[in-house]
Order: sequence, then structure tokens, then C-alpha cells
Amino acid sequence: MHQFQLDPRLAADTVEVATLGLCTVRLMKDRRWPWLILVPQRSGVSELHDLTPLDQTTLTFETCMVAKALKGYAGADKINVGSLGNMVSMLHVHVIARRAGDPGWPGPVWGFGQAEPYDDQALATMRDGLAETVLSSR
Amino acid sequence: MHQFQLDPRLAADTVEVATLGLCTVRLMKDRRWPWLILVPQRSGVSELHDLTPLDQTTLTFETCMVAKALKGYAGADKINVGSLGNMVSMLHVHVIARRAGDPGWPGPVWGFGQAEPYDDQALATMRDGLAETVLSSR
Repeated sequence: MHQFQLDPRLAADTVEVATLGLCTVRLMKDRRWPWLILVPQRSGVSELHDLTPLDQTTLTFETCMVAKALKGYAGADKINVGSLGNMVSMLHVHVIARRAGDPGWPGPVWGFGQAEPYDDQALATMRDGLAETVLSSR
Repeated sequence: MHQFQLDPRLAADTVEVATLGLCTVRLMKDRRWPWLILVPQRSGVSELHDLTPLDQTTLTFETCMVAKALKGYAGADKINVGSLGNMVSMLHVHVIARRAGDPGWPGPVWGFGQAEPYDDQALATMRDGLAETVLSSR
């Protein structure tokens, strides 16, 4: 087993929010939607079904914990969860807060328009707020 | 608890492939991609995190089992898994076989163009082949 190292593209597109038992939780630098990704800290895994059963279960619990926390924090109508990996093969799970009428609604966020960066203060506020929300829901 | 009844839109867009412990597995009537959905047979649930922990775990195992079977059957490069529910609120998980260069690649399939129906024979062949593959992988 190689040491886990976050894919450089995922690293560039996100900032760290929290580290859970299995996953690092990161915030996408795109203010159009409150958008987190969970990355299991495992090397060489690109499909959910390539995780061990225990890791699959842990990922599910962490995904659900983050989804519930994000939905409450963002006041969202719906959470979208997805694991695509067509462009970045390292397994990662998107957890996105959606509202009726948000950009692209009711379509998916992936591939929709261009990312809109937060300003530094807004990014820090969102990251800190989400970190507190996620970590206090464990 | 009300009796589970499949959402009419999901029913119209799919044909049944198999029934597992928790989910009914259905094939989307869209020949652009080998595309299954899993619907937990639970009433009134729209978010993954609204399932009980046991159902979350079972859904994960069934999703992974179906994903692995579909990947092998379709000779896919990547499986896309997603639970959106922006249009149909009944919880359902998409499991889609993707190939480099397929319609919409590397973007998501949701919201991409219009569904292309199978002819009757091709639909039956795909459904039967997937049923055998999924059920024999239990």
C-alpha cells in the first residue's frame, strides 16, 4: 500500500474542511452551490465497489453524516450525491446542496458553466462554518 | 408505514430487472448508456441520510454489487453512481456504465440530450442479460 496522497486536481479545486475516520472532506471553490467532496484516504481506488466492505460502509456513514449537516447548514431543498470519476480517477464523492432555482436546477451541477470563486473572506467563512457543523454532528 | 409503490415517472422510464433484499433494480429505457437505477422499497424517503443505518448499509452493498456486475457486463471504463432526486423525489440511485467517447463523455448523463429508446428485442436482451448477471453475483 502506498501512502495516500490527494489527487492534484482535487487539491487545486478545493480547500480542506475536516478529516473524518476514512475521508478527507473538502469544499469546492465554487460559490454557485455549497459543494463538498469526500475523498476516502485510500490509494489506487477509483470505484466504490473496489473499496473493502468495511470502507464502503464507513464511506456511506460519513457521506450521510456530511449530507445531513450540509443540508441543514445551507437550508437546501435537496442534496445531490454522486461519484463519477470520468475526469479524476481517484475515488471521490460529491455532496452538493441544491435549491429550487439555483444555477442549473433541476439538472446536475457537473459540467454546468464555469466555477465562480469565492472571495477569500467568504471562502473562509463557509469552510469554518461547515467544519464546525460537520464535526459537531459526529 | 405505507406500502411501497414505485413512483409513476420512474416506472414509465424503466423496466424491471431484478428485486434484491432492499431495492428494485430497473433498466432505463435509454440505449445511449447501460443505465440501471436502484430504488429502495421504502415509502416517503428522498435523501440517503433519511434511510435507517441498516438500510444505508444494505443500499451500499446492493449498489456496489450492481455496479460491479454492470461494469463487467458492459465492458465499461467507469461506473457513475448518483442520487440526485431534483425531479423525482423518491430516493433512487443511478448506476451507469460509461465509456470514453460515449454520448456526453466525460460529462454526466443527466440532462444530456434526449433518451433514445431500445427496440423491443434489444431491450429484452439487455434486461435479461443484466438480470442474470446481477442475480448470479449475489
